[in-house]
Amino acid sequence: MGTASARPVANKYPSAHVLKIHGRLFLIDCGEGVQLQLSRYGFSHVKIDRVFISHLHGDHLFGCFGLLSTMALMGRTAPLYIYAPGRFSEILAFFMKHFGEGVVFDIIHVPLTSTAPEIVFEGRSVEVSAFSLNHRIETFGFLFKEKEPARNIRKWKIESDNLTLSEIGTLKRGEDVVRADGEVLKVEDFTYIPYKGRSMAFCSDTAPFPELASYIRGVDLLYHEATFAEDLVDMARKTFHSTGAQAATVALEAGVGRMVIGHFSSRYRDPDVILKEAQAIFPATELAREGMKFDIPLVRYPAEAK
Amino acid sequence: MGTASARPVANKYPSAHVLKIHGRLFLIDCGEGVQLQLSRYGFSHVKIDRVFISHLHGDHLFGCFGLLSTMALMGRTAPLYIYAPGRFSEILAFFMKHFGEGVVFDIIHVPLTSTAPEIVFEGRSVEVSAFSLNHRIETFGFLFKEKEPARNIRKWKIESDNLTLSEIGTLKRGEDVVRADGEVLKVEDFTYIPYKGRSMAFCSDTAPFPELASYIRGVDLLYHEATFAEDLVDMARKTFHSTGAQAATVALEAGVGRMVIGHFSSRYRDPDVILKEAQAIFPATELAREGMKFDIPLVRYPAEAK
Repeated sequence: MGTASARPVANKYPSAHVLKIHGRLFLIDCGEGVQLQLSRYGFSHVKIDRVFISHLHGDHLFGCFGLLSTMALMGRTAPLYIYAPGRFSEILAFFMKHFGEGVVFDIIHVPLTSTAPEIVFEGRSVEVSAFSLNHRIETFGFLFKEKEPARNIRKWKIESDNLTLSEIGTLKRGEDVVRADGEVLKVEDFTYIPYKGRSMAFCSDTAPFPELASYIRGVDLLYHEATFAEDLVDMARKTFHSTGAQAATVALEAGVGRMVIGHFSSRYRDPDVILKEAQAIFPATELAREGMKFDIPLVRYPAEAK
Repeated sequence: MGTASARPVANKYPSAHVLKIHGRLFLIDCGEGVQLQLSRYGFSHVKIDRVFISHLHGDHLFGCFGLLSTMALMGRTAPLYIYAPGRFSEILAFFMKHFGEGVVFDIIHVPLTSTAPEIVFEGRSVEVSAFSLNHRIETFGFLFKEKEPARNIRKWKIESDNLTLSEIGTLKRGEDVVRADGEVLKVEDFTYIPYKGRSMAFCSDTAPFPELASYIRGVDLLYHEATFAEDLVDMARKTFHSTGAQAATVALEAGVGRMVIGHFSSRYRDPDVILKEAQAIFPATELAREGMKFDIPLVRYPAEAK
């Protein structure tokens, strides 16, 4: 919902992104105007139950005040979890003191602390890890992993092997069955995993650093900041940001499926130059623009697959 | 730049307005996204030297954080004056503590206190008064008055009466001249006021109250909130807001030139119903929409006029 960096320009919004997974909405970063962008793109505030804030620079944060106020105004009662650096607790306390009058729902701040990836949220179908990035202030990246789904039984085996309901349950839980006569029904022969768990990583803002590729290895979709093109690589170093080419090098090294770049400096009227430099290194790079949607298609395994 | 009330909807922004007067930009209210709207409509942040914040509800305020940050990022050094209720000092202190690192310009908070109109700023060509409105929290309206311009000399009198440079200076300052022979040159005979000083009043958010019309009597342009139509007059009373008809009654009683209404509740998909009810009482009512510009034309007096 926002592809600008610190200085927004007309029609470009600061950092804000929605990740939709199994009907659940995760909000990643909270740039100014995020509540307007949510309305514009038809996302209901009500469906957001977790917010992930990478760091406490204004362009990733200033939209949270309006968002929380509007949630209150609309009568929200469901708790809201906000994963953000420790100092966010002071910002939340300030908000509650001055603007919290109508807030009747719980706002739970989960402080981020880990360097290497560490799980910060585990739900039924997804787990989220946070890890440190390399920016001017404490900053975190996020790794969203769809959990491996429950095993399916190979239907034709039910009849051929006269499986009982109890045996089916055991196999689906991933345990082998040992029958009274000593026969062993092996999980891999009788069940399969219906689809591959998908994954997405979010890395903004950051300068490149050696460990990053290992943190996000093999994700299906990587969002990585690409504030500058190579002409301003010195500026990128100085401000702890990445160029498109640097982001592409990370994507290549991490062996990700695709990469989306964003967080463009207002110096680039057209960020196509950043895209081209990235694609020269990692061709499966796409440019984020406000309102764009990137799907991660479900890869179904055939029943014959292990 | 913003016609929404507390709950913004797609393409409607919270309260924010620019008043341009003699090349100077005054910003009135600072709703979320104001810096984006300023860019969109081509206003330079640099030219804003005074900000007037009516009250400390989020929909009139939350844009100030991003605006101040961007001013800092763009290297502003000129001081910025913010006229706002007293509690704004705590909000400013919070901002400076957490986000003030790059702010090298002075931000001067002028606390508002007056009930009846009291001058809070006096410049060369304009004076601004603040006065209390009738809202749920401490809220102020603003009255912007172009100063009466310096008198012009009636050019044909220079020759006919052999005016000296010194006599011209005296007359232009508004003082009669007494010549050595006792002849008195009267200011009104020799000079005229070239144009009428213009005026504009800003009233949001407020329920109607008896004194308001007297505070803003005869202004050329009145901006008045009209959050609701008559169908929700009870809601207006409960939340200390006005209906279009109530705003129009104030405009009529105050004898203003024209009225612009805004701050529409998101309940009204089309605020035309509010406009119609207002125009039935005060025909010279116009509806604010994002990006609209309202001119107050200069009324020039002929040289023959006193």
